[in-house]
Amino acid sequence: MIKTDILIIGAGPTGLFTVFEAGLLKLKCHLIDALPQPGGQCSEIYPKKPIYDIPGFPEILAGDLTRNLLEQGKQFEPGFTLGERAETIEKQDDGSFIVTTNKGTKHHAPVVAIAGGLGSFEPRKPTIDAIPEYEDKGVEYIIKDPEIYRDKRVVISGGGDSALDWSIFLSDVASEVTLIHRRNEFRGALDSVEKVRELTLLNKIKLITPAEVTDLHGDGKIESVSVTKDGEVTRLETDHFIPLFGLSPKLGPIGNWGLEIEKNAIKVDNSLNYQTNIPGVFAIGDVNTYPEKLKLILCGFHEATLMCQAAYRIINPGKKYVLKYTTVSGIDGFDGTRKEAPKAVVQAIN
Amino acid sequence: MIKTDILIIGAGPTGLFTVFEAGLLKLKCHLIDALPQPGGQCSEIYPKKPIYDIPGFPEILAGDLTRNLLEQGKQFEPGFTLGERAETIEKQDDGSFIVTTNKGTKHHAPVVAIAGGLGSFEPRKPTIDAIPEYEDKGVEYIIKDPEIYRDKRVVISGGGDSALDWSIFLSDVASEVTLIHRRNEFRGALDSVEKVRELTLLNKIKLITPAEVTDLHGDGKIESVSVTKDGEVTRLETDHFIPLFGLSPKLGPIGNWGLEIEKNAIKVDNSLNYQTNIPGVFAIGDVNTYPEKLKLILCGFHEATLMCQAAYRIINPGKKYVLKYTTVSGIDGFDGTRKEAPKAVVQAIN
Ligand SMILES: Cc1cc2nc3c(=O)[nH]c(=O)nc-3n(C[C@H](O)[C@H](O)[C@H](O)COP(=O)(O)OP(=O)(O)OC[C@H]3O[C@@H](n4cnc5c(N)ncnc54)[C@H](O)[C@@H]3O)c2cc1C
Ligand SMILES: Cc1cc2nc3c(=O)[nH]c(=O)nc-3n(C[C@H](O)[C@H](O)[C@H](O)COP(=O)(O)OP(=O)(O)OC[C@H]3O[C@@H](n4cnc5c(N)ncnc54)[C@H](O)[C@@H]3O)c2cc1C
Repeated sequence: MIKTDILIIGAGPTGLFTVFEAGLLKLKCHLIDALPQPGGQCSEIYPKKPIYDIPGFPEILAGDLTRNLLEQGKQFEPGFTLGERAETIEKQDDGSFIVTTNKGTKHHAPVVAIAGGLGSFEPRKPTIDAIPEYEDKGVEYIIKDPEIYRDKRVVISGGGDSALDWSIFLSDVASEVTLIHRRNEFRGALDSVEKVRELTLLNKIKLITPAEVTDLHGDGKIESVSVTKDGEVTRLETDHFIPLFGLSPKLGPIGNWGLEIEKNAIKVDNSLNYQTNIPGVFAIGDVNTYPEKLKLILCGFHEATLMCQAAYRIINPGKKYVLKYTTVSGIDGFDGTRKEAPKAVVQAIN
Repeated sequence: MIKTDILIIGAGPTGLFTVFEAGLLKLKCHLIDALPQPGGQCSEIYPKKPIYDIPGFPEILAGDLTRNLLEQGKQFEPGFTLGERAETIEKQDDGSFIVTTNKGTKHHAPVVAIAGGLGSFEPRKPTIDAIPEYEDKGVEYIIKDPEIYRDKRVVISGGGDSALDWSIFLSDVASEVTLIHRRNEFRGALDSVEKVRELTLLNKIKLITPAEVTDLHGDGKIESVSVTKDGEVTRLETDHFIPLFGLSPKLGPIGNWGLEIEKNAIKVDNSLNYQTNIPGVFAIGDVNTYPEKLKLILCGFHEATLMCQAAYRIINPGKKYVLKYTTVSGIDGFDGTRKEAPKAVVQAIN
């Protein structure tokens, strides 16, 4: 059982900044995310694109924002359960919660902050009858650890940035990369399209278009795929089949936790601290809704900050908290580090 | 008469970010500030100190944050009335407002956003009977344009960072700089103290401590000051006397605008858009109060953003606004510039 002060569901920008604000109040956080990496939409959908409306950054790449937020919170040593979906919540007699993931990992905390964005990212799967049989037996929809493909043969299918970028990346890791797409045209960053073209000419990526993977074969694990091109079916031997058709967010299991839901989002009390109808459970960032809500990153930051104050009072009943400026008080990390502004000196000059 | 869409009172971080968010909605802003420079507390009180809780910046100097916010908003061409205090507000028959400063400058706008922080910064004045007589006749409490001191003799008094830093700066501009402080010890950044020590040894700054300026003399403008040291009074010829005893914020005239005030701050409706009890007048940032309010920079950013939505509806009645991500839509400046993310290409690879 993982124990923490604030259990955060969703490691997008809102969840990541919560770690920092909670840390200022000496509260520890643990984050669960269905994705294998933190950053939410910023890292999954548009890591290389610039955002222009993060206050103080005339421009910042979404991937850099994620990195900065991780850096900002790291002295508060957040825990992570990645690649798992929060599935159930059970209220304990003492008012605390146990949240269990689809893989059975259990987390225990007095406060739960749902920062689930548009929902947990679930892969769009190709319609191949045999596919469920081979999931995790050579079929992967999300690449968690590229090392498992070292010196293996992989077939990637898809026509967007993920398919392009992973083909490029794995061309240096796998023994053989085949990229299959049902159209001739790919849609992605110019850089990526050009790089794939180059690697194709060097025979480091084998390209088959317009074509589709239509069947899977193998005994207990994938051994080959059927590829249909121009009505003709051929067999291609492979160790892995990775369909990268995009991820789509689904509110998913959280929808059944007894929370008030409106427009696919969780209703919260925005006049106070973004608490849901279940005391001790908060919803912040894209996942919540209230009158005048804007689904913007900067709003999630504010919501997280106010929410942490309420969490503090739940966890430290009766204790009074006085707001301190970081500039004035500095930052004491849970890892023993301290950041602080250079102190003024008091000195005679002559 | 200066005309604009949103008239912002206070050019601190909250006011500056409002320019950007309003610009996204094609609304133009004009800012009034009592200080000669934008940045509010960040530039007046702690420009060289690090802030640790601006989301996405593990550390940023308050002065750099100000510069970044100015840069982020600059394509929306904000207007500025600096060095003037907003004094009166008059509601017009059509619901718009005229705001007049202490210097008589008039501003007309359909929406007023008060981002006045802790209030307008007013100098702490030394208790010298003759001082009111010489204000703006050689006595200045705030340095607006250092060029007026070129090749002039100046007497600065004070013992903190402002007195130290301006003595250093003016030692290169004025013909003579005398720094007078009632104690031997100065309180400031180590760098500044050391630099003043060095300039004193080089005779570029003349230091008199512990001493006080106790009288002013001159016909129509300052010609000399009386300096009392160890009970003895001497005369010192000078063209300027600049007492830098710090600025203290005062809610000031805004307190008489008929707004609901609580704890020296303006009550707003935080469940919607931070509107005050006067429709069309909003209060954002440190200047407002509501249940669970935190006087933090990041909260002002969120409040400004939601406020701009309400301003949009007042200014464009009946027009529907659909939120667009900056990453997706880019930024069209009022100055004709455009920022946008590199577009995806759609291309066949072979
Ligand atoms: C193309 C694009 C451009 C954008 N441009 C901008 C912009 O310019 N400015 C701006 O402010 N915003 C922009 N946005 C929106 C911005 O990305 C979101 O507001 C932001 O990501 C919300 O952050 P969040 O942390 O609340 O949620 P998310 O980033 O959505 O993260 C939520 C995380 O929670 C996880 N999760 C959800 N449910 C579960 C569960 N049950 N178990 C485990 N994990 C779960 C998800 O997997 C996800 O990783 C853009 C979005 C897109 C798609
Ligand atoms: C030493 C110190 C350290 C701090 N550290 C942090 C920190 O680490 N993190 C954090 O988030 N916050 C910190 N703060 C607080 C932070 O600076 C404020 O929250 C922030 O400046 C508020 O911004 P604002 O734009 O709302 O108001 P302000 O910055 O106060 O700006 C308001 C402006 O309005 C002007 N004004 C007011 N009334 C009038 C009028 N009638 N006419 C004309 N002009 C007027 C004032 O002159 C002023 O320039 C710190 C503050 C101090 C003093």
